[in-house]
Amino acid sequence: MQTFQITPIEDQTLQAALAQQINQKTKPLGALGRLEALAMQLGLIQQTVHPVLQQPTMLVFAGDHGIVAEGVSPYPQAVTAQMVFNFLNGGAAINVFARQHGFELHVVDSGVNAVFSPHPKLIDAKVGMGTASFLHQPAMTAEQCAQAIYRGSQIARDAITQGCNVLALGEMGIGNTSSASCLMSVLCGLPMHQCVGRGTGVSDKGLQHKLAVLTSALQAHHVPASDPLHALAVFGGFEVAMMVGALLAAAEARVILLIDGFIATSALLVAAKLYPQVVDYCVFAHCSDESGHGIMLAHLKAQPLLHLSLRLGEGTGAVLAYPLLQSAVAFLTEMASFESAGVSEQVQ
Amino acid sequence: MQTFQITPIEDQTLQAALAQQINQKTKPLGALGRLEALAMQLGLIQQTVHPVLQQPTMLVFAGDHGIVAEGVSPYPQAVTAQMVFNFLNGGAAINVFARQHGFELHVVDSGVNAVFSPHPKLIDAKVGMGTASFLHQPAMTAEQCAQAIYRGSQIARDAITQGCNVLALGEMGIGNTSSASCLMSVLCGLPMHQCVGRGTGVSDKGLQHKLAVLTSALQAHHVPASDPLHALAVFGGFEVAMMVGALLAAAEARVILLIDGFIATSALLVAAKLYPQVVDYCVFAHCSDESGHGIMLAHLKAQPLLHLSLRLGEGTGAVLAYPLLQSAVAFLTEMASFESAGVSEQVQ
Repeated sequence: MQTFQITPIEDQTLQAALAQQINQKTKPLGALGRLEALAMQLGLIQQTVHPVLQQPTMLVFAGDHGIVAEGVSPYPQAVTAQMVFNFLNGGAAINVFARQHGFELHVVDSGVNAVFSPHPKLIDAKVGMGTASFLHQPAMTAEQCAQAIYRGSQIARDAITQGCNVLALGEMGIGNTSSASCLMSVLCGLPMHQCVGRGTGVSDKGLQHKLAVLTSALQAHHVPASDPLHALAVFGGFEVAMMVGALLAAAEARVILLIDGFIATSALLVAAKLYPQVVDYCVFAHCSDESGHGIMLAHLKAQPLLHLSLRLGEGTGAVLAYPLLQSAVAFLTEMASFESAGVSEQVQ
Repeated sequence: MQTFQITPIEDQTLQAALAQQINQKTKPLGALGRLEALAMQLGLIQQTVHPVLQQPTMLVFAGDHGIVAEGVSPYPQAVTAQMVFNFLNGGAAINVFARQHGFELHVVDSGVNAVFSPHPKLIDAKVGMGTASFLHQPAMTAEQCAQAIYRGSQIARDAITQGCNVLALGEMGIGNTSSASCLMSVLCGLPMHQCVGRGTGVSDKGLQHKLAVLTSALQAHHVPASDPLHALAVFGGFEVAMMVGALLAAAEARVILLIDGFIATSALLVAAKLYPQVVDYCVFAHCSDESGHGIMLAHLKAQPLLHLSLRLGEGTGAVLAYPLLQSAVAFLTEMASFESAGVSEQVQ
């Protein structure tokens, strides 16, 4: 796999300057809560006391999953391709929220089991017609995995070259909560029952079946936690592997990363095992309703901004959190100070 | 006091129509979580499956508090007037967030201990030069209280006449967490120590002093929970009483109410004791870091949208939550259905 140069964002001098700027605003100390920590992080990422958000971009990576053949999802595999068309036609939830918040939206065919005609919003990066079922064999080869990471990194770099400095990643792939659950179990060292949830909405019986299938798959492969790339090839999806590459390339370029839900965070688990400092660049948008997501976030010591019981994927949670980033930048750069506004400071 | 005609929003036929519209969108059932409940509420408030948000308006009510003389705040009373100037000059946090989200912002002088020159953004509704200290006497007379409610209702009606159908209320008043704590203790029937917090940031010692002062005040007046208007006159502020009137007038006009933090919610406690159905019109924007707010919200069976550890007031939390209302309306009105997008539905 290619290597990435990712610099930790820590900078004590800048941190002190940002803290001073935040504390001089006309408000009680700390009164803007999480927005203050967010302003600090955005400043440190961009190495400035005047951060600016430019051309926020949502990349929705789509791929199909062989594991669907084992009956782990209540939706047929064809829905992945159908939803790609829905994205291209502007009718999905992610389109609605991306329009609302001025995101550039691109759909990436990472490996959907369908052939698409060219479309201005579609990036063709197909690695295959879906992964193999990882119940018995690896989902993809090591070469496919490296290729997907590489293509993901290039797609992120292209967006950054065009002026994006806030990158959000979304995904679509019937069956991909199964990939995410297995990656979580291996990389967080947790028993499968803590990692499996209802995904798009399996029944109680379906959930038991999904748990049994994924437990068997995990036992069949014996992947050590110390080998995240191998885990990614065995259990991942093409869209998940591309997100790993996109996350690492964007962090290398000091771009703000907006982290969505269960599947996007599973890609980050892989990326962070390879380069722990990638987490410095991540703003955790929300905690989803998929049962493992909260545990995954705790494993990453992440504090998500929103708790809205979302479980849709597509990057929807990431985009919904974006106005809070704008608010953090706005208060940091636009609010008056005690001195400039002639407001008395605390006396006790 | 004037009376209000507030209609509960319940409508089973419309609710069924909204549920059908929500469930036909191209997403797993319930996958947009809190946004789905929000879309339902907004539709029921506006009595339509196509809600529209128009001219969101923030009214910041400012007033001074005699209780400040007892040393309950770390800031001098002069800060109330200084912050009014800051609002008029556009430098406060609420200005920044209101600009970001396209809110009309008006500042209401409900009873600040200062004289202001006319300003296009300032509404003069002064009831007095601040309340009396309620440690020994009522903060205001029953007549002042009724007058403040009336003026608040008229100011809300003016905003609605100009086209606003989403009203957010904010406040500024050094000492007003003390009013809110006392109202909470009386109206929720809770011991004072559960209702008192640090406000703008009193020290440990200051907190103990504040608790002692408010406990004495509570004992001095013996106000029954069954008399919310009397409680408001004894412990309230002019800005709190005006918010009560504004809330009731706006609910009467079927306007969406965005509820901010501890003080705004204390005004709602009063309003809801008078007219319980006012709560139907309330979107609870956030749970603040002021310790009693979470308990207050639980008392109202409210589920706040944001948890950002804010404790600034001014209406900041209310405005920060507004994009989520826009998202709820946008998904309800813009997303494709399974049928229109040709996407397969759940098969299991």
